[in-house]
Amino acid sequence: MTHTNITDIATYMRQLGEQARTTSRILARATTKAKNAALLAIAADLEAKRPLLLTENSKDLDAGVAKGLSQAMLDRLELTTSRIDSMLTGLHQIAALVDPIGVITDLNYQPTGIQVGKMRIPLGVVGIIYESRPNVTVDAAALCLKSGNATVLRGGSEAFHSNQAIAASIHQGLKVAGLPAESVQILATTERSAVDYMVTMPEYIDVIIPRGGKGLIERINNQSKVPVIKHLDGICHVYIDDQVNINQAVAVAVNAKTQRYGTCNTMETLLVAEKVAATILPILSNAYQEHGVELRGCQTTQKLLPNIIAATEADWETEYLAPILAIKVVPDLDAAILHINTYGSQHTDAILTENYDRARRFLVEVDSSSVMVNASTRFADGFEYGLGAEIGISTDKFHARGPVGLEGLTSQKFVVLGSGHIRL
Amino acid sequence: MTHTNITDIATYMRQLGEQARTTSRILARATTKAKNAALLAIAADLEAKRPLLLTENSKDLDAGVAKGLSQAMLDRLELTTSRIDSMLTGLHQIAALVDPIGVITDLNYQPTGIQVGKMRIPLGVVGIIYESRPNVTVDAAALCLKSGNATVLRGGSEAFHSNQAIAASIHQGLKVAGLPAESVQILATTERSAVDYMVTMPEYIDVIIPRGGKGLIERINNQSKVPVIKHLDGICHVYIDDQVNINQAVAVAVNAKTQRYGTCNTMETLLVAEKVAATILPILSNAYQEHGVELRGCQTTQKLLPNIIAATEADWETEYLAPILAIKVVPDLDAAILHINTYGSQHTDAILTENYDRARRFLVEVDSSSVMVNASTRFADGFEYGLGAEIGISTDKFHARGPVGLEGLTSQKFVVLGSGHIRL
Repeated sequence: MTHTNITDIATYMRQLGEQARTTSRILARATTKAKNAALLAIAADLEAKRPLLLTENSKDLDAGVAKGLSQAMLDRLELTTSRIDSMLTGLHQIAALVDPIGVITDLNYQPTGIQVGKMRIPLGVVGIIYESRPNVTVDAAALCLKSGNATVLRGGSEAFHSNQAIAASIHQGLKVAGLPAESVQILATTERSAVDYMVTMPEYIDVIIPRGGKGLIERINNQSKVPVIKHLDGICHVYIDDQVNINQAVAVAVNAKTQRYGTCNTMETLLVAEKVAATILPILSNAYQEHGVELRGCQTTQKLLPNIIAATEADWETEYLAPILAIKVVPDLDAAILHINTYGSQHTDAILTENYDRARRFLVEVDSSSVMVNASTRFADGFEYGLGAEIGISTDKFHARGPVGLEGLTSQKFVVLGSGHIRL
Repeated sequence: MTHTNITDIATYMRQLGEQARTTSRILARATTKAKNAALLAIAADLEAKRPLLLTENSKDLDAGVAKGLSQAMLDRLELTTSRIDSMLTGLHQIAALVDPIGVITDLNYQPTGIQVGKMRIPLGVVGIIYESRPNVTVDAAALCLKSGNATVLRGGSEAFHSNQAIAASIHQGLKVAGLPAESVQILATTERSAVDYMVTMPEYIDVIIPRGGKGLIERINNQSKVPVIKHLDGICHVYIDDQVNINQAVAVAVNAKTQRYGTCNTMETLLVAEKVAATILPILSNAYQEHGVELRGCQTTQKLLPNIIAATEADWETEYLAPILAIKVVPDLDAAILHINTYGSQHTDAILTENYDRARRFLVEVDSSSVMVNASTRFADGFEYGLGAEIGISTDKFHARGPVGLEGLTSQKFVVLGSGHIRL
């Protein structure tokens, strides 16, 4: 079916869901060898079809220009040679990861004599809803495949031709490895109502992962009858304690803001202990000015840095994703933790301190998915954490929190081994 | 507030939610010592107030009789001396469990030099919605307290006086241990709309655990805007393979059905391999008859056991919770697995076999929360699995699957330790 001749979306989505559910049972017991073979065959097919990918992508880009998409959107949409390289590298990296499925842990004898352990299993069917980047199609499909899940992918309508070309390579790779083509289904329609079906079919889809802007994620979360692994804001903080190595603190605080501006783990608010503010803020101010970062400060900050503008209540709640930084001077660790737990988004927060007890308290008392001591918030990332890859970052607590790798796409079941044991 | 003078439920529930959220931050960092002290002080206060508990409970029982509650409901509602004993034992057992909170695992160095690990944390606020059994009030509150969660409890209106008396002891115990009384809030209203608020306040409540009949659970699950840890059907199977120790198989198959009838892990359908059916079914039939179990069989079973009635399609989908057993003769393991994955409820299923490969295949291919080899399905239970206690059994895959103990009431956050590390 193509996007032009699907007239009955409800039937199409139900068929697709049924196929995904059926295939998920086959994938759940696919061998590591077959899954890895598929990943490498997908890479080989994409490599062989580079010219086709670029041609199909240029159709999307032309249509995007005609539709008046912003330059940022066109940039996200574009497949370049180096972006195709990254897709291929990703496939090889995921093939090299340890297969999480079937791993049995904690197989302990109980007093009755039965042995009880846990076996890691796929979630089943993963639905991914994303916007313009076509590389998500490969990355997400590869992670789901490696973790034994069937996938239903719904990319942005702007990337339709690119995604269909990538889909063809994915299906070719699955075929080569002897796995069902329905292991990865990419919607052959750009109808918006298809998304409504995806998020309301818990009988066919076990989890939805939306990737894109906050608007998309909130809409899907509100509407979904299926569990959602979601990432909302990244309002990340760095707190500079008064017992601190100044040079180290400056290096980390500058890195956390300036290494990249548009990422969710970038610091948006800097908290500085009163006792050290007069020493460190002028040094930091110079460093940020060199990077062209606009500073907005509380009253105390403004006294120390007279040229900066005032931060309002709204600044403490804003994810700038831009070269702007809010600065607040706080009396002590308690005030810093209170500020973070009040205004933060439970994403990533760091303390810079040489004080052992304050470091320990910060780790326990800050309720965020990543808590750090003397390290840049920019490290909050699946690759940096050694997960091997990342399907997203969860700002929820339920099921998965923080960077989500293969394990976040799995569950566990109990395994009980006996030799004729009965319950007395 | 009592149940008679709460006129504005919306305001009451919002206040209660805010208090739970605030208190959850305090509980998250409560010491193991304080939490255990509270559990033991609650036990001591309940012990001291036995006469009051029995008096308050008799008010509920009298009202229940007047309202015409069924004998089964009145039985669940009753607090006896031995049930109070069990509550006290439970509190002592939970106090003796290892505190899961704050445990850091997998603290590994990454190539960049940062150390990344995971710290176990409470979920936050747990809402429990249950029916008549007053002992759930203590059990659930104790498990949530030990795992550092604030709790909002909504018991059945029939148990109102019993629950309020128990609530008073819980608050007294919390006070003795220096923990906030709001750590455990038991609704002081029997208004049904209070439940509607509970399940639609994700800003205050992080997870809902409904305990009771399937109707209650389905209603809450459909309505909830908060993640639900739920238990639906327990349609459990035992498959007797043809390569089997007959005596062992008879013992386990009889135990799985007859050890208790009303429990979710009781076998409801017995699958028997064709080759062994003629040998084992007559033996089993005699054993079940001695226990007064009604048998319903497929056509092949009926040929071997001419006196039993025919099983219909509906029987394969029924959780009897009664001395009734459906029996189906299947050609082989493949047919057994297909039957279980089609008609089962993904709860607990067992294979009885001496064949190594079939045992391994069953464990991998049956998609249920507990899969067993040569053991009775009746072992599927938090205590039997060594979890120490159980707040429920989850038939979902997301977050928690199978018996849910303390760990199911927790999440994990990433901990990053550096010494001035920046991302390059």
